[in-house]
Amino acid sequence: MKKHNFNSGPSILPQEVLQQASEAVLDFNGIGLSILEIGHRTSWFVEVINEARALVKELMQLGEDYDVLFLQGGATTQFMQVPLNLLDKDAAAAYCVNGIWGDKAVKEAKIFGNVNVVSSTKDKNHSYIQKDFSVPSDNVYLHYTSNNTVEGTQWHTTPNTNLPLIADMSSDIFSRPVDFSKHSLIYAGAQKNAGAAGVTIVVVKKDILGKTNRNISPIMDYRKHIEADALLNTPPVFAVYVSILTLRWIKKEGGLVEMEKRAKERADLLYSTLDSLPVFAPIVAKKDRSLMNATFTTHNKELENLFLEECKQQGMIGVKGHRSVGGLRVSMYNAMPISSVQALVDLMIDFNRRNG
Amino acid sequence: MKKHNFNSGPSILPQEVLQQASEAVLDFNGIGLSILEIGHRTSWFVEVINEARALVKELMQLGEDYDVLFLQGGATTQFMQVPLNLLDKDAAAAYCVNGIWGDKAVKEAKIFGNVNVVSSTKDKNHSYIQKDFSVPSDNVYLHYTSNNTVEGTQWHTTPNTNLPLIADMSSDIFSRPVDFSKHSLIYAGAQKNAGAAGVTIVVVKKDILGKTNRNISPIMDYRKHIEADALLNTPPVFAVYVSILTLRWIKKEGGLVEMEKRAKERADLLYSTLDSLPVFAPIVAKKDRSLMNATFTTHNKELENLFLEECKQQGMIGVKGHRSVGGLRVSMYNAMPISSVQALVDLMIDFNRRNG
Repeated sequence: MKKHNFNSGPSILPQEVLQQASEAVLDFNGIGLSILEIGHRTSWFVEVINEARALVKELMQLGEDYDVLFLQGGATTQFMQVPLNLLDKDAAAAYCVNGIWGDKAVKEAKIFGNVNVVSSTKDKNHSYIQKDFSVPSDNVYLHYTSNNTVEGTQWHTTPNTNLPLIADMSSDIFSRPVDFSKHSLIYAGAQKNAGAAGVTIVVVKKDILGKTNRNISPIMDYRKHIEADALLNTPPVFAVYVSILTLRWIKKEGGLVEMEKRAKERADLLYSTLDSLPVFAPIVAKKDRSLMNATFTTHNKELENLFLEECKQQGMIGVKGHRSVGGLRVSMYNAMPISSVQALVDLMIDFNRRNG
Repeated sequence: MKKHNFNSGPSILPQEVLQQASEAVLDFNGIGLSILEIGHRTSWFVEVINEARALVKELMQLGEDYDVLFLQGGATTQFMQVPLNLLDKDAAAAYCVNGIWGDKAVKEAKIFGNVNVVSSTKDKNHSYIQKDFSVPSDNVYLHYTSNNTVEGTQWHTTPNTNLPLIADMSSDIFSRPVDFSKHSLIYAGAQKNAGAAGVTIVVVKKDILGKTNRNISPIMDYRKHIEADALLNTPPVFAVYVSILTLRWIKKEGGLVEMEKRAKERADLLYSTLDSLPVFAPIVAKKDRSLMNATFTTHNKELENLFLEECKQQGMIGVKGHRSVGGLRVSMYNAMPISSVQALVDLMIDFNRRNG
């Protein structure tokens, strides 16, 4: 039985992507070799990675002033790589801390330079997004997390700033149209909306690079990757391939406009149900609710465990909250069919009737 | 038609590993979810990575004083991560440079501390291994490349030293029994003998860690990965899974003793043919020839191109030398059947008859 997959990441992927990926592991495009066995400098793979780089720019409507890389190490490595490339020891960068990932990004940046936490929502356990704050004009960039996977909040507008804007979009990239061109650097682990674990998409506006005095290891230097046409070293070939399959699927289905439409339908169904059932309590401020990750609780721990058990029995997985915050969490990424959310909502209504 | 795959990496994998990996992309162990869709903290994946870590130690006959990590970023990232973790700014490390990868490792290490190149074979284009050299006793480690993928040389003994010994085993890990316990750190990109591109195996003796004064980014700190049981951040789930499938296959086939036996059979067949045919000329010193990568030339560029064309026609791929050195190269990793080498040898004999 196919599960209802509410995992927060790695997470659900389109069934046709899984089918194509599975076939490519046996025979890539009928060439008589597995995707796992081909050299990354063959024309076979160069075509894949170049198509992937172009498609990212097309979906984001970005021009020649941007470049796209497929790196390794996840967003956690970007927490380091961003300040390593952009933040001199004596300079300062501004960070919005709206969740545990933003907090980790700050800790990393402090190793390399000075950090101004210009906005923090720690006072209310990151249950909202603080949108009004001021940023020192001499800071070298402003960093924010567009969607907080753990806490269930999301920026529904782009922060307004004159500084180069940097976004960790790991959990909502390609889920909606955004004015990407307001950003100087965007990064995302692929394992939510853009593929499988093992590859990190980095979109960078080239004019922000090369301005620090630090001696950067080539493998961590965005410029070296760009110069090498995204093939500085052996990339994670299969993970890049799953990303291109996923990006092609997004485009074919109608692009980011359609992805947002579906995300809103799913989220509306779930949140309206949550708001109507006394046994469940949403956690975050209504206006800042994430379309990707809905967090909520029940009246007590006992009910929570009972609900999780019933979810499990009905083949619904990934409903447990992040280990750092507890409670319940439902992740609804691009590939999530509305039918899965409907099944969950049906269970919630029934659960409320029996336990309300 | 299945190709004869002489790629240098990513490269040939056992057919049954490809079959199992392909199936897991559709449904992992019959759980109703793809391996690409499961969380890395589920018991499903925790079992995979723990089995993988244990199996590496078992194949290497290492004890509790070692730990095994599955990281991202390839050996190139290890060129940075090793000195970052082990080499203080004022300290010095010793490096053997027997090829272009050793040379890159040196360039990285120089960013972090002092480097003594205690052995270099650059004088003869790295066509041999220099085994006699002295190392200053105050150096913090000795680093060498066990097999030179590009040049086609291999260490057939382990360097003798009192210092902590560090090996880049990217292109010959798990291809033969080695006294692994003489090493303090071993790393290898998996994409030759140990799986697919996108994961790097790091085996580390714990007593060498924590001795530098540097403030290391957590994601680059081996200790943080060990403390987190190899799940500090989202690992490359699928690539780790392909590694455990490959490691299981190695064990089932007879372990490293059997892998070495097969490697010698393949290499003996190829090198004895090379030595007997006047049209071909091996490049490296006989005693230092790699069992994994055989490099050779023909009398002139025209013959070389002709030979490459004939290989291609017969479905033999990856025979061209590395772009930095030219010539011809045949890579024969664990999964390479002797029948592929026999097919190549048959073509070489015929080619020599027609062009000798």
